[in-house]
Amino acid sequence: MYRIASLTACCVLALGMTAFAADEAAPAGQAALEKSFDANIHTSDLDSWMKSMASEPNHVGSPHDKQNAEWVLAKFKEWGWDAHIETFQVLYPTPISETVELLGGKKPFKATMQEKAIPGDTTSRAKEYALPGYFAYQGDGDVTAPMVYVNYGMQDDYKQLERMGISVKGKIVIARYGAGWRGLKPLLAQQHGAIGCIVYSDPADDGYATGAAYPEGPARPPQGIQRGSVMDMTIYPGDPLTPGVGATADAKRLTREEAKTILKIPALPISYADATVLLKSMTGRVVPGNWRGALPITYRVGPSDRQLHLAVKSDWSLKTLYDVVATMKGSEYPDQWVVRGNHRDGWVYGASDPLSGQVAMLAEAKSMGELAKTGWKPKRTIVYLSWDGEEPGLLGSTEWAEEHAAELKQKAIIYINSDGNGRGFWRAEGSHDLQHFVNEVTDGITDPEAQVSVSQRSRAAAREMGMNPKAREDIKAEAKIDADATKDYQMGPLGSGSDYSAYIEHLGLPALNIGYGGEGDGGGGDYHSRYDTYEHHSRFDDPGFVYDALLAHTAGHMVLRLADTEVPVVQAGDFADTVAMYLGEVKKLADNRREAAEVQAKAIADHVFQNTEDPTKTNGLPTALKPVPKFDFTPMDDAVKQLQKSAKAYDDAFTANAAKLSPEARAKLWATIQPLDQTLAPDVGLPGRPWFKNLVYAPGRYTGYGAKTLPGIREAIEDERFGDAVKYITLTADALNAYSAQLDKATEVLKHG
Amino acid sequence: MYRIASLTACCVLALGMTAFAADEAAPAGQAALEKSFDANIHTSDLDSWMKSMASEPNHVGSPHDKQNAEWVLAKFKEWGWDAHIETFQVLYPTPISETVELLGGKKPFKATMQEKAIPGDTTSRAKEYALPGYFAYQGDGDVTAPMVYVNYGMQDDYKQLERMGISVKGKIVIARYGAGWRGLKPLLAQQHGAIGCIVYSDPADDGYATGAAYPEGPARPPQGIQRGSVMDMTIYPGDPLTPGVGATADAKRLTREEAKTILKIPALPISYADATVLLKSMTGRVVPGNWRGALPITYRVGPSDRQLHLAVKSDWSLKTLYDVVATMKGSEYPDQWVVRGNHRDGWVYGASDPLSGQVAMLAEAKSMGELAKTGWKPKRTIVYLSWDGEEPGLLGSTEWAEEHAAELKQKAIIYINSDGNGRGFWRAEGSHDLQHFVNEVTDGITDPEAQVSVSQRSRAAAREMGMNPKAREDIKAEAKIDADATKDYQMGPLGSGSDYSAYIEHLGLPALNIGYGGEGDGGGGDYHSRYDTYEHHSRFDDPGFVYDALLAHTAGHMVLRLADTEVPVVQAGDFADTVAMYLGEVKKLADNRREAAEVQAKAIADHVFQNTEDPTKTNGLPTALKPVPKFDFTPMDDAVKQLQKSAKAYDDAFTANAAKLSPEARAKLWATIQPLDQTLAPDVGLPGRPWFKNLVYAPGRYTGYGAKTLPGIREAIEDERFGDAVKYITLTADALNAYSAQLDKATEVLKHG
Repeated sequence: MYRIASLTACCVLALGMTAFAADEAAPAGQAALEKSFDANIHTSDLDSWMKSMASEPNHVGSPHDKQNAEWVLAKFKEWGWDAHIETFQVLYPTPISETVELLGGKKPFKATMQEKAIPGDTTSRAKEYALPGYFAYQGDGDVTAPMVYVNYGMQDDYKQLERMGISVKGKIVIARYGAGWRGLKPLLAQQHGAIGCIVYSDPADDGYATGAAYPEGPARPPQGIQRGSVMDMTIYPGDPLTPGVGATADAKRLTREEAKTILKIPALPISYADATVLLKSMTGRVVPGNWRGALPITYRVGPSDRQLHLAVKSDWSLKTLYDVVATMKGSEYPDQWVVRGNHRDGWVYGASDPLSGQVAMLAEAKSMGELAKTGWKPKRTIVYLSWDGEEPGLLGSTEWAEEHAAELKQKAIIYINSDGNGRGFWRAEGSHDLQHFVNEVTDGITDPEAQVSVSQRSRAAAREMGMNPKAREDIKAEAKIDADATKDYQMGPLGSGSDYSAYIEHLGLPALNIGYGGEGDGGGGDYHSRYDTYEHHSRFDDPGFVYDALLAHTAGHMVLRLADTEVPVVQAGDFADTVAMYLGEVKKLADNRREAAEVQAKAIADHVFQNTEDPTKTNGLPTALKPVPKFDFTPMDDAVKQLQKSAKAYDDAFTANAAKLSPEARAKLWATIQPLDQTLAPDVGLPGRPWFKNLVYAPGRYTGYGAKTLPGIREAIEDERFGDAVKYITLTADALNAYSAQLDKATEVLKHG
Repeated sequence: MYRIASLTACCVLALGMTAFAADEAAPAGQAALEKSFDANIHTSDLDSWMKSMASEPNHVGSPHDKQNAEWVLAKFKEWGWDAHIETFQVLYPTPISETVELLGGKKPFKATMQEKAIPGDTTSRAKEYALPGYFAYQGDGDVTAPMVYVNYGMQDDYKQLERMGISVKGKIVIARYGAGWRGLKPLLAQQHGAIGCIVYSDPADDGYATGAAYPEGPARPPQGIQRGSVMDMTIYPGDPLTPGVGATADAKRLTREEAKTILKIPALPISYADATVLLKSMTGRVVPGNWRGALPITYRVGPSDRQLHLAVKSDWSLKTLYDVVATMKGSEYPDQWVVRGNHRDGWVYGASDPLSGQVAMLAEAKSMGELAKTGWKPKRTIVYLSWDGEEPGLLGSTEWAEEHAAELKQKAIIYINSDGNGRGFWRAEGSHDLQHFVNEVTDGITDPEAQVSVSQRSRAAAREMGMNPKAREDIKAEAKIDADATKDYQMGPLGSGSDYSAYIEHLGLPALNIGYGGEGDGGGGDYHSRYDTYEHHSRFDDPGFVYDALLAHTAGHMVLRLADTEVPVVQAGDFADTVAMYLGEVKKLADNRREAAEVQAKAIADHVFQNTEDPTKTNGLPTALKPVPKFDFTPMDDAVKQLQKSAKAYDDAFTANAAKLSPEARAKLWATIQPLDQTLAPDVGLPGRPWFKNLVYAPGRYTGYGAKTLPGIREAIEDERFGDAVKYITLTADALNAYSAQLDKATEVLKHG
């Protein structure tokens, strides 16, 4: 379900085969190997595989999803991999009936829950098992109530509503997509007492404003619906009934009522064609300026005079997941695993999301199979995974991670994820001790449009963003770093929204999420809709499959280098610097919050809010901010200082001695580095959501997909849980100290064998 | 034509009579006088005067404009003022024929240039002399060409167009209102080679997005057209044929061709109903995100496949202006004038703009007349002015200022301006040595909604704005100052857009522009349209004429105090602090520009812009920024230091000795202070526009109405005229030094008589 910025383009490109340079930095043998690998990546393969895999709806439980799994299995076997299908039994609701009905007026209006077919493209192959617009893991129900428009339905919007004196209690909220993860919208609605939730795609963010609508152009057409999961994945992803363990047939299960990640109120997504009718009927106060979308109406908050009838009934039976697991055994270090995955299930046809990434991954596997046929064997074991059930809640990847947790923690040296892909800019997010490695690989991949390395192109994009006079300060600061050619191009941190979550955040493994995207006018106008088809992807998202193939080259080079490298690729300096930056942010956050609370307290005492009140519009006092204590950050300051010291010592020792290590010392070094990142994920976990163990990287409780770094401290400050902040300053410092200590052991090995 | 933020409200208020407190700070006699003055301000007067004055179109040259002048004259006389009408003969074009026609398609589409009448309101009294939508001082012509959409049509938009590789040469541009003064849009179009210009009101900024459309609500309806002047008033305002001198019957005149302030290309405003048809037909590249409005279309840049036919023919004859001049002679200091004005001409009915301010001013005059009948006589001469011809280009006020320049420079101690007014927040802009005086007066005026002083309410609004986490840094800094109760509530600087321009910027007199506004949903949806009627104003802009009456109270108190005060009201510290702040801004501007030029130069050298290029969309290099030298700001640093020193000495001496001065010393003090502000406006004037003499306050060459402070330096840096910057650092420092020296003379008088 992950999307790298905007994935679409406005005209068909015919750049043909991807050009790429041999990597100067790689050893000669490696360069030759990569050249052979590259020669066997064919855009025509990707094209035909996507055409076939996206030919019918392929969501969890659909016949074509299983067929695709079997087809992928057969392909892996054909290419010489040791492959099998691993199944899980998960709770996965599918809709039986759905109603969105505006009552009153001359006649009731009913929303249309399925997009119409477009003559000549895949959508015209209407299968009755195509999923309608719906939200997985909403709470079934049948409610009738007035509507309240809540803008994006995020925390700040509810604060604003409160000041306007408008309550959603007993109402049905209508929210537009954007500004935060979809699942937070019904969750926050529920927390504020709403009895139902409608989410629609406003054309300001995703529709005609962004470009010509499909099929003329790539943008979302009026009838397009964004499906999606609303499972509360910020508590834990995966099967709601089996947190922490694999959802095998005989696993111990919670009841549906016990599962905290399932919502309690009914919720549905609708199109903007239908939303226009609902919003046009809205009465009440005109919205604040930043709540306006691009529909040709006066947006109003409500509550509406007219009632909305919202009803959802689902089939809550267990469904079977089909993860395809393919292994190529390591010739020298079979118990060190390079793990690579991409999901296979879509919401309907799923061409861009996820098949663009899936076919790239298959191209890698095919080419490695060819290499193996010529006699090459990876030194380490390579594990490729075609995940099922990502869309409803990272099901396939999470259950597999939980089922194989012990073995993964012992053997995996990395998890490399991709998801939907498209034309545009290289982007990587992940563990920052891999940042230098990622730069080494991508410095050797040439962008087919710019004819410079993909990292150099992304660096240029970051610099150009920083030159916008209106750019945020952090973006300007990043641009400054990226203008320094001696520094690595910076990766973002991982949050959630794709299959890496369990690996980095639950198991503490080093992980990457990679892909291309961001060019084009569409802004992902097919995202999670029935129009995410082969035709849409090949016309707008990656004409000629140029960037999908480029993903195969990039990920393939990573896997090949990791499989064969004699010494670990970790560079600790990047990680230390990044954590130091995060600590700076967290301290600034505390200072800003403290000042804001002081300013607000004085303003309340001075009756500022009463004095600005317009008597024709209620605006109560804002929620009072808690006074923010001065935190003692010393444990973190010390830990970061130590981390920077240990990192420098390791990196220096590595540069000096790594090439000269004895085989025994190398083995010792690997044994020390393999569990290194796991030190960041002690068993304690995050407050209220202990499944999330990583104390450096997490998805935000109130951002959903968006990452929160140093989450135990940062979110505690944001949420005014100041006791937790104090507690997690120590816990996070402990984790960083454990990382430093482990690194020191490795330095010792590098120095003295 | 001036508007204080948004002037409209969404529901009718019935607050009745305004409440206000007696001013504790004023001397007892003054308090009693103000109480008597206040008792004679009646909202019913304002209501009935507006109803009558706005009953028919009243633009320059219309029969009703002349009738209104004669009626105002009669009123002044009735109230005991010495009054007369002063006429000027000015070039003022009115349209004979106008065409906006989209060619091609099934049949040509023609824009409607006059808004339809609304049954039951003033607009249904259709007079044939109502002006259609048009731009005063555009250049007549008849052109046919493809269209290019240029967003707001400001400088940055043309930079963006250049990068997109789209030229407007030989095209007709279509721009939306907003982001800068209307007149810059056709001017910049012309400078970039366009042959015509259309401007429309996008509903994102001014239409259904902001509230329900008139007559249901206050917002601009689809057929509403914003008329206006496009005279290049940033060179000089007033009659284009008589710059610098009064446009009397026998004045020496330029030819129309010689007048630099008249545009060369045809230009017209249209409604958003009509703009929708033009923009929907547009072809070419999709616009950047921040170029989108709220019409339900995909905005495209063009050039359009279809041609637009634009033709304008005007009557360019001279027309007569009728300024009403009313005087109440000072009993003690008849040669010291307190000057107060508001214009009377509108674009059509002109209820909010300008009659809301005009009737407030008339209420002041009536009440002062009543005071005079009870025996009170002002010590100084009070001059009230009902200006004509403000809308086309500040004609009446500028010609009068130019005609009476010598006398004004010798006698005027202030010019107090107002214009359109409405419900909401107090706002003042002007000479900062009057800031403390403005605070003293407004601390004694109670806001009828908040029941605190109007200055306290505006202060609260500034503080609330600063609490928005997304507020700009300068807004946060201002909020911090406004939270300090020991400091004066801050005034803004004067730019242009109303009748103060000639007084402060050409003559160098101290001036204020004052009013209320900003509450309501409409965002000025009637502005410069046929719907600016009595009904619109009394329903939405100031129900009950509460804030229009409040303006009369406020301005009246200022005039009364200035007329009777024994000692000058100047407080120099506020001015010194404000200039110090402006200097800080200018230095930061230079530093930011220098850094931006360096960053850009490095980025160009590193091929950053080529590397981010999307081959499906041309994006050339940005215009290269000139390297910014390190300016020697020492003359300004020294001048500001001296100013702060001199200001403190004056303010301290004033506090210590002002009350004890002998009559002779007082006279000497007045003689020293009266010309004080004129030191800021030496004869040299601004580069390329020497009519603008004030070196501290000016309208921006590329903002139009928006002020640029320290304009000789600031604009030179912005426009990369670095030689001018160096030159104006010295010239501006000289002006400030002259101000300090004059102040020192006054201090000397305060200290030693």
